[in-house]
This record gives sequence, structure tokens and C-alpha cells, in this order.
Amino acid sequence: MEKLLEKALAGDIRSIARIISLIENDTPEKDELLKRIYPLSGRAMVLGITGSPGAGKSTLTDKVIESFRRRGKKVAVIAVDPSSPFSGGAILADRIRMQRHTGDPGVYIRSMGTRGSLGGLSRGAKESLILLDACGYDVIIIETVGVGQSEVDIIKIADTVCVVLVPGMGDDIQIMKAGIMEIANVFAINKADKPGVDRVAAEVRLMLDLVKDRSWTPPVHLTVAEDGTGVEELVDSLVAHGVFLKENPDGVRREWRRLAFEVEAVLLQSLTRLAEREWSAHRTDEVMNLLLSRRTNPYAVAEDVLRKILPCDRADRGATEEEDSPDVAANDG
Amino acid sequence: MEKLLEKALAGDIRSIARIISLIENDTPEKDELLKRIYPLSGRAMVLGITGSPGAGKSTLTDKVIESFRRRGKKVAVIAVDPSSPFSGGAILADRIRMQRHTGDPGVYIRSMGTRGSLGGLSRGAKESLILLDACGYDVIIIETVGVGQSEVDIIKIADTVCVVLVPGMGDDIQIMKAGIMEIANVFAINKADKPGVDRVAAEVRLMLDLVKDRSWTPPVHLTVAEDGTGVEELVDSLVAHGVFLKENPDGVRREWRRLAFEVEAVLLQSLTRLAEREWSAHRTDEVMNLLLSRRTNPYAVAEDVLRKILPCDRADRGATEEEDSPDVAANDG
Repeated sequence: MEKLLEKALAGDIRSIARIISLIENDTPEKDELLKRIYPLSGRAMVLGITGSPGAGKSTLTDKVIESFRRRGKKVAVIAVDPSSPFSGGAILADRIRMQRHTGDPGVYIRSMGTRGSLGGLSRGAKESLILLDACGYDVIIIETVGVGQSEVDIIKIADTVCVVLVPGMGDDIQIMKAGIMEIANVFAINKADKPGVDRVAAEVRLMLDLVKDRSWTPPVHLTVAEDGTGVEELVDSLVAHGVFLKENPDGVRREWRRLAFEVEAVLLQSLTRLAEREWSAHRTDEVMNLLLSRRTNPYAVAEDVLRKILPCDRADRGATEEEDSPDVAANDG
Repeated sequence: MEKLLEKALAGDIRSIARIISLIENDTPEKDELLKRIYPLSGRAMVLGITGSPGAGKSTLTDKVIESFRRRGKKVAVIAVDPSSPFSGGAILADRIRMQRHTGDPGVYIRSMGTRGSLGGLSRGAKESLILLDACGYDVIIIETVGVGQSEVDIIKIADTVCVVLVPGMGDDIQIMKAGIMEIANVFAINKADKPGVDRVAAEVRLMLDLVKDRSWTPPVHLTVAEDGTGVEELVDSLVAHGVFLKENPDGVRREWRRLAFEVEAVLLQSLTRLAEREWSAHRTDEVMNLLLSRRTNPYAVAEDVLRKILPCDRADRGATEEEDSPDVAANDG
């Protein structure tokens, strides 16, 4: 492990990949490792690229990688795919367009699932980012699909978020937009050679106008990822936002919020592990039959398990916030 | 509260709405209430309708409501929207097409956000469902937007999941499909009057063919929600799947899995409340400054908080799975 970490920190891609697998598999050594490399992280620019399916994010990411490479930066990409709910594994996308960077030692690309009970972006993505940062990647791109929790979670781990929109997105754009407005630092309206681009751009600018007193107004770029149109200007804006964060009090506030989120996420991960372990020990055929026959209910069973995890006073008062003694289910001794 | 519940159970819509608000706001009385109404639930058919933005889910849901009304069923709809990450509130969609049912006492429609640290579908959606079930709705429809965690989570609360696809969904359909195949019980290919419908249908059937030994093969329906084409046949399949679940061992296994998920979700909710409370008590300026200056790290701080929550032996061994004593951070006394 010691040797593996040493090689990874020296830039060996195979060692980096092996450590990321350890992180993804949530092996017990992981926590100690992350505590050790944490002080080495904090230099990289972490960039989120998100948007709805079909927006052309992979092609755009490919062109963004190219631009950063020309600027002499080492780039890592974590492409987050929705996980399969049962197998727990990532659905490997054929991200063909990014494959052409495979021969370039300055580019590392990794696909990752969104597994984990906590939903949204996996802890694995966040923790891999700490490793890649410590291993000397200058720019780390997190690419996420979807308009769900992963899009919302991206601000918890990225410094700069680029939201990719496209002309003709249908009725749901209204639903998405209010959320997007709160997370986007830079907009890319991709496929800008398609009809309807002016309408989307106008809608975005209208929403941006509604927000007063911003210290950073998200620029709106029109791009055609296929032929690279507008990509340089987009990357300029991404870099400019990074500079802004370093110089502005907003940047510190953002870092504060992110660290607070991060502690909570680590805490929840530990508690989740514990809950899963205790519940699977408690989940006997007898308990499940009582649940199936509705002779007990999930609330009563969860209370029983909680009582095993926590000191008695907390199980009764703390976690449920009830002052009176809870109704003890008859199914547990 | 007693009176409110009585009126809700008698079918009073305003009382139902008020209780759902109590549930959404995670008020302390909630747990007790849910434990009480739980035995009254379990009769409703819970139907999930999901698919990517722009697939026409709202229009299709509207037509599905209409069909169930003609069949004499009371219908409730929980429309889950992505939440704003900061305000915590739901982004209210103007679900205009469903509004026309407002005058019908046999239809209850409620918008809900995906707030909550656990991501994906909120606990509020699940718990409201228990209430609506107890209050006598025959069919409860959960409509979710997106291809993220909420789509994956829907199988944890719905009996029957209808996945809505459309022609021309772009490159990301491949990414989505493997996940969708595992959750879909019925497919609706909507906007079936648009070009490309045959290709989508063929792709879905091809994926279905790869799975052997199914006791239920998801039917694929072509629909045009705008004019109601194919909706009756779709609803027939949804009803047929409900009957299948009652008669087949797969149905019992599904219910088993769902109850196991449900206990874990309740447990995590309690632990999350506790973690949030302890962390906000522990989150002093001093601790945050140590984090910001990188003199400590989120892993060490989370361990400190964990030690306050759990009995000592668990904080050291249980939650982190380390046998040796962890590296105590210097920032906490």
C-alpha cells in the first residue's frame, strides 16, 4: 500500500487507477489513506460539467481537455454515470470521443457509478478527486449526466460549474432552470448551430437578470462542440472564474460551505455503514415476516435497530426528537 | 392533530394537504403519526412514472389519471421535482395539463421537492404515500423527472414502474438504458407520431431479449399522450402488472426488498438528523478555521463528531472498521 501510494504520487497511472478502485470498493484502508493524502490536495482546479442527456457533454468535455492540454495543464476526468440499482456497478458508457486522449500521459479518464445509499454523486467521486489532486493533476473535470441529485451535488465538490444547455430541450427546461441558475458559474449553449439557440440564450439571460447583487455574473457561451466553435472562449471563462474565487470573499464562503458539507458527508458515510451492518444483523426471517404480515412496521423496527447502535438516552431522545418514551414494538424480545 | 387525522382519513382533502405539509417539514410529531396510520396502508396500487426531461410525462400522467377515473378509481399524484440546492424548496412546475382535474374530488395532486441529504426521492414522498394510501386513494402515481438517483429510487417505493421514452433522445440513451431495463415493468414510447419511434422501440425490445428467465416481460406501448392514443392499453398493462405481483412469488420478493429498504431509510433518516445536529453544534469558527487552513481535515473532524454520537467502543471500532486506535486530531481539546 505504501509503495502503491508512492508510485501514484509520482504520477504512475496504473497505481492511481488501483487506488481509485480501492476507494470505490470502500475498503477499510481507505479512510487512513485519505487522511494521509488530504494535506497534499487543494491545488487542482475542480471543474463540474453537467447538463441533461443528449446535450453533447462528452464531446464538449473532449474539446475542453484539448484546450487545457494546449495550455500545458495535466487533466483528469471523472465521468459519473447513473448506477444500476441492483448490481451496484457503473454502467460503462462508450465515451468514444474521449478515448483518443488515451495515449496522452497528461490525461487520465475514469468512469464511475453513482452507487451508495446516499444518492447523487458517490463518495468515490469526491475521494478520487482528492487523490488525483494530490497526484498532480492541474484540472479535474467531473462530468455528470442528468438533472437529478447529481447535478445538485456537483456544487458540493466542484469549484466551477459549467452547465450545458441545448436548443429545443422541451417543457422540462423550466423545471430545471431555477435549480441550474443556482449552481451554474458558466453556461455553454451547445449545438449552437441548431435552430432555437437564440431562444434558449434569451431565456437564460432573462433568468440571470432577475438575480441582483451578484459578484460574478455567469457568462453565456454559444458552442458547437463537434467543430470546437466557442470552446476557447468557454475555457477562458472557466479559468477566469477560478481566479475570481481566489480573489473574492465569495470564494472563501464557497470553500467554507464545501468543507462543512464534506464533514457531514464523511459522517453520514460512517453512520450509513454502521446502520447497514446493524440492520443486516437484525434482519432475521422473523423480523421480515412480522413486517410482511404488517404485525409491525418499518418505524418500530428502525427504532429497535437504533437502540442497538446508540447509547440508550440518545436512541430514546436524540434521534427521534421525542420527549416521551416511544412505543416499543413487541417483536424484539 | 387527532381531529386533523380523523378528517384526513374520512377523505377531507384540506386535512390531507395539511398533514403532508407536516410530513414534508419533518415535524417531530410525524414519526408517531406514521406509525399509527401505517397499519391502515397497503391497499393502494403505487405506480411510478419516470423518464427524461421532455418525454411528455405530465401529459401522459394526465391521460392515465383520466383512464383510472373512468375505471372508478380514486387517484393521487405526487409530482417530484428536483429541489433547489440552497433554498431547499421544490421548484414548482406549472403542471398545467394536470390542473384540469382540480375540480374532481377523486383526484389529489401534489408537487414535492427532492430535498434531504439522502438525495433522490425524498422521504416526504414515501411518507405521503403511506398517508394517501391510508386515506383511501386506490391508485397513487409518483411522477419523477430525470435520469439520476430519483429514477433509480422509484423502485424502492413503487409497485409498478412505467418508463417513458421518446424518439430521438440523443447519445445518452445507451447510458440510461441499462439502468432503465432493471427498473421498468412497462414501457411507454411517447410522442409515437414523431420520426424515430421504430428505432427506439427496436432498441428497447433488443435489450429486453437479452434478459432470460423473466416471469414478467415488460410490455412496450406506443403512445401519443396529446391525443390519448395507446393510453388505455398502457393502463391495462399497468393493472396487469399489479395483478401479477399479487399472484407471483416475485411480488413477495419485491415487497420483502422494499420493506428492507424502508427500514434502512427510516434508520438513516434518524441518524442523519442526529449527525446534522451534532455537527452543527461542533461546527465552531475554530474548527472551520482549522479546516480552511488545512491544519485538520474532514476525516479527522468527522471522527471527532462521531465519537460524541456513539458509545466509545463503537466510535473507534464500529463505524470506521479500524482495529487500531485512530489518529486523534489535535483540534478538539
